[in-house]
Amino acid sequence: MTEEAVTEAPPPFALERVVFFTDAVFAIAITLLVIELRLPETAADLSGAALDEALVDVLPKVFSYVLSFVVIGLYWLAHWRRFGVVNNVDETLARLNLLLLGIVAFIPFPTGLMGEHGDEPTVVVIYAVVMAAAGLVGALSWVYAQRHGLVSRRHSRRWMSLSTARAMSVPIMFVASLPLVLVHPYVAEASWALILPVQWYIVRQLRREEA
Amino acid sequence: MTEEAVTEAPPPFALERVVFFTDAVFAIAITLLVIELRLPETAADLSGAALDEALVDVLPKVFSYVLSFVVIGLYWLAHWRRFGVVNNVDETLARLNLLLLGIVAFIPFPTGLMGEHGDEPTVVVIYAVVMAAAGLVGALSWVYAQRHGLVSRRHSRRWMSLSTARAMSVPIMFVASLPLVLVHPYVAEASWALILPVQWYIVRQLRREEA
Amino acid sequence: MTEEAVTEAPPPFALERVVFFTDAVFAIAITLLVIELRLPETAADLSGAALDEALVDVLPKVFSYVLSFVVIGLYWLAHWRRFGVVNNVDETLARLNLLLLGIVAFIPFPTGLMGEHGDEPTVVVIYAVVMAAAGLVGALSWVYAQRHGLVSRRHSRRWMSLSTARAMSVPIMFVASLPLVLVHPYVAEASWALILPVQWYIVRQLRREEA
Amino acid sequence: MTEEAVTEAPPPFALERVVFFTDAVFAIAITLLVIELRLPETAADLSGAALDEALVDVLPKVFSYVLSFVVIGLYWLAHWRRFGVVNNVDETLARLNLLLLGIVAFIPFPTGLMGEHGDEPTVVVIYAVVMAAAGLVGALSWVYAQRHGLVSRRHSRRWMSLSTARAMSVPIMFVASLPLVLVHPYVAEASWALILPVQWYIVRQLRREEA
Repeated sequence: MTEEAVTEAPPPFALERVVFFTDAVFAIAITLLVIELRLPETAADLSGAALDEALVDVLPKVFSYVLSFVVIGLYWLAHWRRFGVVNNVDETLARLNLLLLGIVAFIPFPTGLMGEHGDEPTVVVIYAVVMAAAGLVGALSWVYAQRHGLVSRRHSRRWMSLSTARAMSVPIMFVASLPLVLVHPYVAEASWALILPVQWYIVRQLRREEA
Repeated sequence: MTEEAVTEAPPPFALERVVFFTDAVFAIAITLLVIELRLPETAADLSGAALDEALVDVLPKVFSYVLSFVVIGLYWLAHWRRFGVVNNVDETLARLNLLLLGIVAFIPFPTGLMGEHGDEPTVVVIYAVVMAAAGLVGALSWVYAQRHGLVSRRHSRRWMSLSTARAMSVPIMFVASLPLVLVHPYVAEASWALILPVQWYIVRQLRREEA
Repeated sequence: MTEEAVTEAPPPFALERVVFFTDAVFAIAITLLVIELRLPETAADLSGAALDEALVDVLPKVFSYVLSFVVIGLYWLAHWRRFGVVNNVDETLARLNLLLLGIVAFIPFPTGLMGEHGDEPTVVVIYAVVMAAAGLVGALSWVYAQRHGLVSRRHSRRWMSLSTARAMSVPIMFVASLPLVLVHPYVAEASWALILPVQWYIVRQLRREEA
Repeated sequence: MTEEAVTEAPPPFALERVVFFTDAVFAIAITLLVIELRLPETAADLSGAALDEALVDVLPKVFSYVLSFVVIGLYWLAHWRRFGVVNNVDETLARLNLLLLGIVAFIPFPTGLMGEHGDEPTVVVIYAVVMAAAGLVGALSWVYAQRHGLVSRRHSRRWMSLSTARAMSVPIMFVASLPLVLVHPYVAEASWALILPVQWYIVRQLRREEA
């Protein structure tokens, strides 16, 4: 690498660190609820049916773990997809990414609440707000990277717009679900399932654009 | 790197991130049971024989830690071997890999159960099912990578088939051990030892193929 | 890479490992207080207003998490900025960096104390001392790297001096705040806000120097 | 990279993964005792002198954290130095390295014991045995790498022998201290300080060899 290259381009290490630091924080966030998975100390002496009952009592925590793994996994995949196109990073993008990490690392807490109190309005609102915040900051980083020339020019403008729409659709739908909590928490939760067909529709458009 | 190279090939970063994210999650999973290794708060004032007794009480947890380290270590080695041949990644492989990580991070929970309740049928069944699931998803990713041209062409077809057989043998033997739990949990556990000679036999074939 | 290159230059891996080990430790430190975010076991049966109250009781811990994320995030950004210029590492720099990591990983403890006891002189002193220590060791590593030719020559001397001033300003201001604890802990805490305009002023000079 | 290069050389990724997985496990091990650093739940309502007392009660745990950070930090530096020379990895080295990681991740447990029960013979013996095991496996990996041509030929034979002596001196001195526990645990602990001048002497020889 010549001296000029060093002077003009930011060090490739800069992007690498942001990406690997992100992966380390995601790895911790995605495994955090496994720590909760344990029988109470009193279960050490149980056996047979009594032990089986203690295991059944752990099921809501297993559900929370699976839920947080799936959700944080999807956020990681979104980050992985975007930073497969991002080929540069400046301090603002690094800060936006840190903000995203701060929210992602927080996800296990409301997810744990959902496992035990998924029928409580307050809990459902907290969960939806945290999800919306994570989605929004992720989308903002993506828009910022596009506007400041930090992405490779591999894709068309329309592909970029569609991927922004894909990113924005998640926080929009979580925010839109908030009034439904007033009807019933379960109605709001059921509405989140609509995220899947919307994503599926946008991804189909993206694939068409790539072809 | 020319513009064309960028357009045609997926970014090498894509594979690197999947691999390093995998390593971060494995690192957390493999060390998780160390957190359990501690004396109860009440032991702070113990000394002499009473302290030694408290230390002996920790031994089942030390056993669980060692067991989970060995087992997760072997799954990591298998991943390391396979991704030494995988030289590309698409979104489906990334998703399969995430699924594998979700199961691997779960392993410390049934392993902790085995340390304290290794004679309980329910616990032995949970353990065998989780082990089989981890082995199966690992094998599926490996088959997927081969079928979709994501592996280097360094090895012969027969080597590939043998390594798939190696991968599949673990989940098959864990599933096959399930009926033995009805005889006695210890019989099922003893049958797991058969995994070693089977692996050894396949590895010998693999070495011959490499020579 | 020729044999001579290997003989003369230290392996690039050496720097990479220091940087990624740093990122892994920062990732753990920055997420550590999330583990504290959980309702007491007794809250499993609560609902409605009683659950909301239990959630309000968690707020000081949420505050501690946010505070530690912001502070450790800023230290990470400082490290990221500096090691974007550092292009080599020797054993002394690796040791200084380890010392920094030891302090950074300790930050969650005094930060947790601040969330519950931010009005206690002892707690405020501990917090300020730990912050000053982290800032000081970070600044020392930066000065060491400059003096021992471990940085790229991309930047001017004045830029280097300014960035050292930026690094030193943080520990100086935390140490200077210590006598204010005698007036009142809140006065010392309020004085920390002055770090922002000082940083802002130095960063403006740095930008001018870069232009 | 040409097809031949791929066929002949093992993928450079193989070494990179071993190294970064090592860093991730070390990062977890080195920060593990920070989790123990917290006031009891009952301290939430304390203030003034009573809170200060609760903080003093945490000091043995702070000592354990500092001790484990220093010790694991030194093992990390040793690994970092060695793998700055190792330029290749085979499955046996990967397995030896895994074994080392399993012991390193275990270190926080006996270190925590030392913080509260450093005067108990059993605890001192456990600590010395774990330290000796970590040192021994580290030394064995280093010898294995040299004997199987996995190191760069940058250094002289004498440098290699000296660095092996350096590695072996630590486990030898921990094992040699075991009989001293019979005199008094503190005598054994004091004898560990001799590791420093021995290391210093060997390092001086190494430096001379490098010059």
